[in-house]
Amino acid sequence: MQQLAENKCFDGRQLRYSHASKVLGCVMNFSIFLPPQARDGKVPVVYWLSGLTCTDENFVTKAGAQRYAAELGLAIVAPDTSPRGEGVPDDAEGGYDFGLGAGFYVNATQAPWSRHYQMYDYVVRELPALVADQFPVDDKRVGISGHSMGGHGALTIALKNPGRFRSVSAFAPICSPLNCPWGEKALGGYLGPDREAWRAYDSTALLAQASERLPVLVDQGDADNFLQEQLKTHLLQEASGAADYPMTIRMQPGYDHSYFFIASFIGEHLAFHAGCLY
Amino acid sequence: MQQLAENKCFDGRQLRYSHASKVLGCVMNFSIFLPPQARDGKVPVVYWLSGLTCTDENFVTKAGAQRYAAELGLAIVAPDTSPRGEGVPDDAEGGYDFGLGAGFYVNATQAPWSRHYQMYDYVVRELPALVADQFPVDDKRVGISGHSMGGHGALTIALKNPGRFRSVSAFAPICSPLNCPWGEKALGGYLGPDREAWRAYDSTALLAQASERLPVLVDQGDADNFLQEQLKTHLLQEASGAADYPMTIRMQPGYDHSYFFIASFIGEHLAFHAGCLY
Repeated sequence: MQQLAENKCFDGRQLRYSHASKVLGCVMNFSIFLPPQARDGKVPVVYWLSGLTCTDENFVTKAGAQRYAAELGLAIVAPDTSPRGEGVPDDAEGGYDFGLGAGFYVNATQAPWSRHYQMYDYVVRELPALVADQFPVDDKRVGISGHSMGGHGALTIALKNPGRFRSVSAFAPICSPLNCPWGEKALGGYLGPDREAWRAYDSTALLAQASERLPVLVDQGDADNFLQEQLKTHLLQEASGAADYPMTIRMQPGYDHSYFFIASFIGEHLAFHAGCLY
Repeated sequence: MQQLAENKCFDGRQLRYSHASKVLGCVMNFSIFLPPQARDGKVPVVYWLSGLTCTDENFVTKAGAQRYAAELGLAIVAPDTSPRGEGVPDDAEGGYDFGLGAGFYVNATQAPWSRHYQMYDYVVRELPALVADQFPVDDKRVGISGHSMGGHGALTIALKNPGRFRSVSAFAPICSPLNCPWGEKALGGYLGPDREAWRAYDSTALLAQASERLPVLVDQGDADNFLQEQLKTHLLQEASGAADYPMTIRMQPGYDHSYFFIASFIGEHLAFHAGCLY
């Protein structure tokens, strides 16, 4: 593990590292914010999963989360959104919504993607093990959140691992990859044409089988250009109702898909996680 | 004036515009945040001047200022850092510290710079007149702040115009262009070799002649790589002492020159301005 950057921020430390990922077969960067409370002992940690085209840095520079994390005593880990590097295949058509920057937090089963695109295992297992080993975070008090593709990642990962995560939140998540063009392209590519396999990475399908109940908070802007075609919040609302799985799903009037939306509500999301982790 | 972007943020509006600047002889972009209080009437405004290489967007996306501005009821205007466009000359050597992105908030007197590089007049007169005409801001309650080159800009502009501005603050300002390599290159280029002319844009020189006293707040990180060679906070401390001009100048242990430093203290700076403007 190699340190790429360190910046003092709100009396805590914003750090960036690269490391060789076994699971992904490439070198990966990730960022971690350690709040001032981490000087005195282990703190709970929230994993943040970013959306299409992002790296680990977008959230770190744009969300303004450090202020709240420093107040609440939360570490925040931000991984990259896909494997990276020369040997990693990318969308042949150069699309922003598949390949590099668009790992969708799944384990690919189809060639040539299956060699590197194992973002589910990376986020659920490899990275948390590294983080718990190297930093003063409490691996038993873990929340997860994300935006858009990362909101889909946070919801599906938490629903599949209710013992690993104590809280989950999402901003403008892709609620059902089975039912939107982004999902069709990504899951069709990474998992192949058999749509049954996609259900393992679809929040609405996973809800129907969920045994445990986690606290869930979702914010969605009603001026979000992707709401109707891609995100489809109503599918999550319907599925949680049908599964009798309580969720707080809020429509925020006038907000769009940008980091200005995330910045406006990240404080409430982190307070929600801190309430579950402290 | 043409709107380029609008994003709801902390219940206010983050806006971006382009307009044809007469003073600069080119099309310029600027950003303005209007807090929710601006729906009910005019609000005070803080001008933010960015540092070398920045545009109007860096502060808007990285500083996390909107949260505080929305709480305090402040508009924030962020201009670009130099004239822009095809006809605007740039540093022949491609340096980041002169020409495009490096206007230094002066009125250039030397060819070929004098044709476009009139950032002082743009920031002091042309842009505020446009803003006061087009937005619900109170042109009698105006503060100014900035970072690095923009901290130099904020201090010099406020010292030269104590009737226009009621408060001034700076992050890691270039305290004396007369006494650092960045200043030598920029003022030498824009104003020519006669160093007497530079004194009109040097905070330490201006302090000696200041008649009125404005509230001044300066924050400087002591882990800032530019502190010793370029910023030289001690020159500002000495000049304010010699001029009997009270200033709050704080050394912040462990902080560097980045936006993580600005984000950590922008709330205190905006509260300082609000205290002077409300």
